[in-house]
Amino acid sequence: MSRTEVSTYGEFGLIHHLTKNIEIQNASTILGVGDDAAVIDHFGKQTVITTDLLLEGVHFDLSYTPIKHLGYKSVVVNLSDIYAMNATPTQITMSIGISNKLSVEALEEFYEGVYVACEKYGVDLIGGDTASSQKGFVISVTALGEVVADKVVKRSTAKKGDLLCCSGDLGGAYLGLLFLEREKKIFLESPGVQPDLENEAYVIGRLLKPEARKEIIEFLDSENIVPTSMMDISDGLSSEILHICEQSGVGCTVYEEKIPILEDTRNAAFKFEIDPTACALSGGEDYELLFTIRQEDYEKLKLHPNISVIGHMTEADQGAKIITKGGNTYPISAQGWNAFRK
Amino acid sequence: MSRTEVSTYGEFGLIHHLTKNIEIQNASTILGVGDDAAVIDHFGKQTVITTDLLLEGVHFDLSYTPIKHLGYKSVVVNLSDIYAMNATPTQITMSIGISNKLSVEALEEFYEGVYVACEKYGVDLIGGDTASSQKGFVISVTALGEVVADKVVKRSTAKKGDLLCCSGDLGGAYLGLLFLEREKKIFLESPGVQPDLENEAYVIGRLLKPEARKEIIEFLDSENIVPTSMMDISDGLSSEILHICEQSGVGCTVYEEKIPILEDTRNAAFKFEIDPTACALSGGEDYELLFTIRQEDYEKLKLHPNISVIGHMTEADQGAKIITKGGNTYPISAQGWNAFRK
Repeated sequence: MSRTEVSTYGEFGLIHHLTKNIEIQNASTILGVGDDAAVIDHFGKQTVITTDLLLEGVHFDLSYTPIKHLGYKSVVVNLSDIYAMNATPTQITMSIGISNKLSVEALEEFYEGVYVACEKYGVDLIGGDTASSQKGFVISVTALGEVVADKVVKRSTAKKGDLLCCSGDLGGAYLGLLFLEREKKIFLESPGVQPDLENEAYVIGRLLKPEARKEIIEFLDSENIVPTSMMDISDGLSSEILHICEQSGVGCTVYEEKIPILEDTRNAAFKFEIDPTACALSGGEDYELLFTIRQEDYEKLKLHPNISVIGHMTEADQGAKIITKGGNTYPISAQGWNAFRK
Repeated sequence: MSRTEVSTYGEFGLIHHLTKNIEIQNASTILGVGDDAAVIDHFGKQTVITTDLLLEGVHFDLSYTPIKHLGYKSVVVNLSDIYAMNATPTQITMSIGISNKLSVEALEEFYEGVYVACEKYGVDLIGGDTASSQKGFVISVTALGEVVADKVVKRSTAKKGDLLCCSGDLGGAYLGLLFLEREKKIFLESPGVQPDLENEAYVIGRLLKPEARKEIIEFLDSENIVPTSMMDISDGLSSEILHICEQSGVGCTVYEEKIPILEDTRNAAFKFEIDPTACALSGGEDYELLFTIRQEDYEKLKLHPNISVIGHMTEADQGAKIITKGGNTYPISAQGWNAFRK
């Protein structure tokens, strides 16, 4: 039998390869694999469902991640996917695989973080599974949410001429990771040295304790804006823009100067001598929302302090492009998170 | 900070400890942690949700598990929990963490098994997550099902006088495991020796390719029988009986001679010189249904070839007891699956 390495496909290619022949059997299945979350019909309202698997050593490092924050984050990253469907999260399940390394006290802290997130976002923990793991902490969360049928927002419905918007600011979480990885390396080499993380609270907080953009969804609803497409930014702006373009069959033009990057993030990038825009485009884990709106909705959101219009959608054959501050035009490429990894 | 080992609680104790303070926030959350599945209200019909985490080296051994069967089984064990709520499964999500050891071809086979199970049981695969794992294959499945509101069957509603029933036959899967573990050990010691698994196809099949008891749920529905309590038998009959007794606040009397054990299973047990009844009581992974019915429903199911009445429910202060073939009475203890593990 031939052997193809998983790496030849990449994550998205692999999922597509393994799920491309699915035939839907239940009338209640409205939307399956391929968006932030799946959609199930329940008598007029729809249920949105998403799931994430987090593995120690791959998605998190317990040597610098407070376990309570990890509990919080493992909930939030799933809720972010629910909001990205324009839905309200309602329930989660939490399964954990635990090695001997973790004490009951550590797990209590983990669940404290889970409960804080549940309370903040108004969701119920309704089930899960607990297993022993031979190596590493395994976390699997599934989140459910609800939405009125005609308000579900997919990735595949952006139109030419729509404005491309993003919430909050980008690039911070990736720089938080760089600082923590640097300090870990220094600590391992010279355990006596105190960590030098002063002034980096913002970017580190972005990595360790992200929030889901509940208030953006509430604002859009209050203004009667239904985005024409939406997803959350977990793998970096470039990767997500390409998802929307490909799935919607459109191109887009993004203006570098419009990409929201905070001063704290810029300063952090300069300390590593890297380009802040590159961190926004190809870093990850910001958990902001990327969405498109009809041009006529622009007036309603132009004054919102946490929404930036960063570009507009074009014909598919125009491709996805970024115009730099210097006026040059480059194609947007999907390096995503992995590009920064060694 | 003090350190308590996870082992001091055991699986069920740990879940209870970590989830005992949950306060439900959403009106749609009908039933949370503590049963085979959680229940969510959706306008008259209810959604049932359950999740399982399967870890290589803990829940399965790829050295003797065909990976297609593993895909099939990882779906079936979740559907079993949905049926155990008297619901019909409709959708699943599948998340996998994969190490370099697995090729794309192996994953294709895994998904083939997943799809065969989905087709057989009429469920849709609607989403999931794919991650790289540093060590071992990680599988996390969440299943959804639906049921008319007044037909949900919990573990906690058995009444004194009800008859205790179980589907199919018990003990086989555990003996299948014993054979495969024995052959693995022999193979590791003497790679040239051919495996001696003739005549053990039944018990090995019970372990590697279990089925969920769809037809029992359909039969009960066709006869208008709503069990007074139900759960699936995944950890062994003893453990499950104690769950129903504790959660329902009743006792029970079980008759050893009524416990359904097939000839193939008995013969396999004798080869290992162990008691077949012990395999049924404390083995696991049979994925049969354990349920209680009102006495007046007895006539409707007494002729069903795959349902056995194995005892009846009593006052709580009578405890959970088994009366042996020899006429002795013993308390039922919750050894579960772990008792057999080294």
